[in-house]
Amino acid sequence: MLNKLRFFLLGSPLRTQDAHESRLDKIRALAAFSPDALSSIAYANQEIYLGLVVAGSAGLVLAWPIGLAIALLLVIVSISYYQTIQGYPSGGGSYMVARENLGIKPGLVAGAALLIDYILTAAVSLTAGVDAIISAFPSLLPYRVTISLAILGIITILNLRGLRETGVVMAVPVYLFLFTYLGMLGYGLVRALIDGPGDFIAAPSPVEPLTILLILHAFSSGCTALTGIEAISNSVPSFKTPQEKNAQTTLIAMALLMGILFVGSIGLTQYFAITTTGHETILSGLARHLLGTGPLYYLIQISTTLILAVAANTSFTGFPRVAAILAKDSYLPRQLTNVGDRLVFGNGILLLSVGAGALIVLFQGDTHTLVPLFAIGVFLAFTLSQAGMVIHWWRVRADERNWRLKAAFNGIGALATAITLVVVGVSKFSQGAWITIFLIPSIVVLFTRIQNHYKEVAAQLTLRGLPPSLHALPEQRLVVPISGIHRGSLDAVRFALSLSTKVTVVYVEMTPGSSEEISKKMSEWFPDLTLEILPSPYRSIVAPLVSYIRKHDEDHDDGQQAVLVLPEFVPTRWWQGLMHNQTAWLLKAALLYRRPAHGKRRVIIDVAYHLDD
Amino acid sequence: MLNKLRFFLLGSPLRTQDAHESRLDKIRALAAFSPDALSSIAYANQEIYLGLVVAGSAGLVLAWPIGLAIALLLVIVSISYYQTIQGYPSGGGSYMVARENLGIKPGLVAGAALLIDYILTAAVSLTAGVDAIISAFPSLLPYRVTISLAILGIITILNLRGLRETGVVMAVPVYLFLFTYLGMLGYGLVRALIDGPGDFIAAPSPVEPLTILLILHAFSSGCTALTGIEAISNSVPSFKTPQEKNAQTTLIAMALLMGILFVGSIGLTQYFAITTTGHETILSGLARHLLGTGPLYYLIQISTTLILAVAANTSFTGFPRVAAILAKDSYLPRQLTNVGDRLVFGNGILLLSVGAGALIVLFQGDTHTLVPLFAIGVFLAFTLSQAGMVIHWWRVRADERNWRLKAAFNGIGALATAITLVVVGVSKFSQGAWITIFLIPSIVVLFTRIQNHYKEVAAQLTLRGLPPSLHALPEQRLVVPISGIHRGSLDAVRFALSLSTKVTVVYVEMTPGSSEEISKKMSEWFPDLTLEILPSPYRSIVAPLVSYIRKHDEDHDDGQQAVLVLPEFVPTRWWQGLMHNQTAWLLKAALLYRRPAHGKRRVIIDVAYHLDD
Repeated sequence: MLNKLRFFLLGSPLRTQDAHESRLDKIRALAAFSPDALSSIAYANQEIYLGLVVAGSAGLVLAWPIGLAIALLLVIVSISYYQTIQGYPSGGGSYMVARENLGIKPGLVAGAALLIDYILTAAVSLTAGVDAIISAFPSLLPYRVTISLAILGIITILNLRGLRETGVVMAVPVYLFLFTYLGMLGYGLVRALIDGPGDFIAAPSPVEPLTILLILHAFSSGCTALTGIEAISNSVPSFKTPQEKNAQTTLIAMALLMGILFVGSIGLTQYFAITTTGHETILSGLARHLLGTGPLYYLIQISTTLILAVAANTSFTGFPRVAAILAKDSYLPRQLTNVGDRLVFGNGILLLSVGAGALIVLFQGDTHTLVPLFAIGVFLAFTLSQAGMVIHWWRVRADERNWRLKAAFNGIGALATAITLVVVGVSKFSQGAWITIFLIPSIVVLFTRIQNHYKEVAAQLTLRGLPPSLHALPEQRLVVPISGIHRGSLDAVRFALSLSTKVTVVYVEMTPGSSEEISKKMSEWFPDLTLEILPSPYRSIVAPLVSYIRKHDEDHDDGQQAVLVLPEFVPTRWWQGLMHNQTAWLLKAALLYRRPAHGKRRVIIDVAYHLDD
Repeated sequence: MLNKLRFFLLGSPLRTQDAHESRLDKIRALAAFSPDALSSIAYANQEIYLGLVVAGSAGLVLAWPIGLAIALLLVIVSISYYQTIQGYPSGGGSYMVARENLGIKPGLVAGAALLIDYILTAAVSLTAGVDAIISAFPSLLPYRVTISLAILGIITILNLRGLRETGVVMAVPVYLFLFTYLGMLGYGLVRALIDGPGDFIAAPSPVEPLTILLILHAFSSGCTALTGIEAISNSVPSFKTPQEKNAQTTLIAMALLMGILFVGSIGLTQYFAITTTGHETILSGLARHLLGTGPLYYLIQISTTLILAVAANTSFTGFPRVAAILAKDSYLPRQLTNVGDRLVFGNGILLLSVGAGALIVLFQGDTHTLVPLFAIGVFLAFTLSQAGMVIHWWRVRADERNWRLKAAFNGIGALATAITLVVVGVSKFSQGAWITIFLIPSIVVLFTRIQNHYKEVAAQLTLRGLPPSLHALPEQRLVVPISGIHRGSLDAVRFALSLSTKVTVVYVEMTPGSSEEISKKMSEWFPDLTLEILPSPYRSIVAPLVSYIRKHDEDHDDGQQAVLVLPEFVPTRWWQGLMHNQTAWLLKAALLYRRPAHGKRRVIIDVAYHLDD
């Protein structure tokens, strides 16, 4: 039944040999890799606005200079990644670049930052997408957590199915977004020329003084506009040949579009002196100002939600891949490398989905409280990746004519993002950045712990030191606990006799006197076998058996461990099992998974006797 | 670690031979069996008030006549149970009386009604107790679910420990309650004589017309005052000798106290024309009116909460016992008869706790929405029990001189409670009584289903028809799936060789080509064994193994089933298990618990190889 549901939701399994990845041309690549970057303006603009509005109109006029500063950062980071594409044509994720050039620890830091980022991208994109819906339909506010989780669920299922169609299906929302937003901004420019500037008379009165910290704070929040810019350089192998050149062209196109959208929207917002009330986003305010509350306005809101959903989806490509790379290096549980039925990293997808879902629930679907956690990871990964590139150019200096110039560009990138990182860390520390600052080193510690565990296991399981030929073990001592005399228990005894001649049957006597009947019947059916009666003054089945087995091992002292043969009868329906004592489970927990006093082996033989329907 | 926590919370195990029940004198018996009955006034009064206040002051003046009608019912039911004590000196629970005299089906209906009642008593007593707290401290309103659940948790743990001290510890809240309430009522009587009557000028204006249905409705709600009256007749064996006489005296005392408290409080409330606002209970309103908001008022509220907590606790004595009786008759899962470490029916206690907790959460801790579910079960059990007593007297008519008179009294009781049952069922149907009306027959169906299952199992496990002597089975075919060549898997192969000479090792090849290395190594270590390679185009481990085993059975056709030997290595810490594929579990689910195509037996041998720390 579960299998049927799974087939319905996820489709039937795919064969390993059918795995292939189609190469993307520039148009489809832009659609596949840009949603995260382009959609960032939805929350970045909003955060700049929320950061400044507390200082009233005196604060809001700073949106434009802050926007320009972030745009400058965008140019620097874009150039850096342009070079990363050239340096790592096989795909230069931050983890790989940092590990190869800066060492394992910085690589792991970058890896931890990336994992956190992907989870936050998914969570923030979803909540920001729901914010766009709520701006249009304020009555949906009480359901924002539910709506976010519903979209998350749909994205999770689609990804577990395997999104073969990535480039094609994704292209629609991306180009719809570009088309509607560029159209709106162009129209806004015309309106600006005709209408002239607005003023902030409607702006809320200031509740906080305009301090440097407040400005830095707004800048930090706005830096989330840069999230997703690294996606193209991570995925160079997905491009059609000439891969590097195509990837670089696409990166330039994406950076240009990001710049136009970001600077354009923030500029118009300030020019028209737009403010909003309630839960309306500032982008919604701009759209409503320009287009009125008509079909075009709703189209803008829908396209915003759609591209944000697609942006959340990009995490579902990135996170499982990074997790699988880390797991292959033994820094995360091996299961994350499993390729599921549908040729996707199913466990990674589920882990991301659970993580993003937990964030949405914990933060009550509120983008504004989630964003402070966000920028730290992003800029840490940027910095490590760019710093790694500086080392990279120095390493390949023999083969690279302009290595100094290139190292300088990446160096400037690293420096700019490092400064931003510090600014973000300080100005946002108490609002939530501390969570990320605390989490990243914790995850790095976890990575190394996990790797140590795998190393330890491998050392213990190695064949080195084993004698050159292995023979069968001596005859085993089997202990069969029975709860009564019936077909199931007698069958288990017969089975035990087929494996060994050393069979002991035991009965745990919970109700004093109940053993007499059992003894009598046993001697009728198996006159040659001895039945041991174990008294149980505390009415426990497990404790007397465990101590009997320990004694059995001590008495025989043959270097082996007694083997428990567990008769279990299995009803035809699983829920009928609820009507029988599940002693077998308790015994397994108490014996199988606890180390025997001597030796390393503990064996339990489950003899399941199936009942008829 | 879990064991330590358990010992800390529940204490160390007790020996079976130490089980004994101390006999209670009348004073302690009253404390042990009356809390449920006495505390009912807390919610019964409240429900009458809430039922009438919607009709304004015209409604509220009917509280007194309704109170008298319920008091009359109390007299009738008390006389009925007085006789039950004589007829069933070994303890006449509704289930037993109904089953013996009316037949199995009515007995099961009574049993289902009782179980539901006990759960509702626990839930309603807790929420009503929290209502008393909230009346005194209105700011706690948002936490009422949490507070109810916390008290429920404490009661659950105390009962799992085994409340040896029942009579002693319980006596304090019960006598505190009697002392404070009787004191207050006495003082109220004096004040009534001095102050004269109040009037309902402050009463809320009516929002509903005063209809017959509204009056019946208030009466039905008030009938919950009678809950718990059967407790003494259920527990005659707990009394000191002369048991019957002592139990009867205690019953009379309890009924008198109930009557005084109920009629007294409802009379004073109406005389002073007390109304309340917000979430304050009417009893709290009465106490505030008489005592002012001072220490005495808080004492009243505390003693109300305490006796209601003790009343909830009485369910924890009754429910597990009834569940164990039903389970002994195979109407409920056998585990409910298990006597735990501390000589209590632990599973019954947990089941009750989960049920009451679920009701509290589902109904958001609101007494008023819970009460309509309540009275149906209570009066159904009353009716069946009294009707059973009529038959009982007729049956023993030879030995009982006054059997006609006694049958008449029980008959009147049965009739009165049956009429009340119909009134409650009709007037409260849509408010929640339908849930109970639907649940009781469903539970009866469940009872018979469960009994049928046990009968079916017994029939299949009977030894009848087995050949007179049983021998060992033929040599077993063992199949050892390995995931690689390491100490753990080689150990499992050696173990398998010690049980049988028919050993096949299989390797599921998930990554094409990975089997070559394995084959080479296997032939080095075990040159005599054959290694089967199972291709797995869909990367599943379970499916190829399951079909291989099916084929193995078909090819050999020896009437036996292939035995799976599962090498498992066990890390030292349970969480380290998260870092390894738990294929063993999947295989067990797919093989052990599914019936083999031929025969009834399926065996899995777990070979656990324990790693060092």
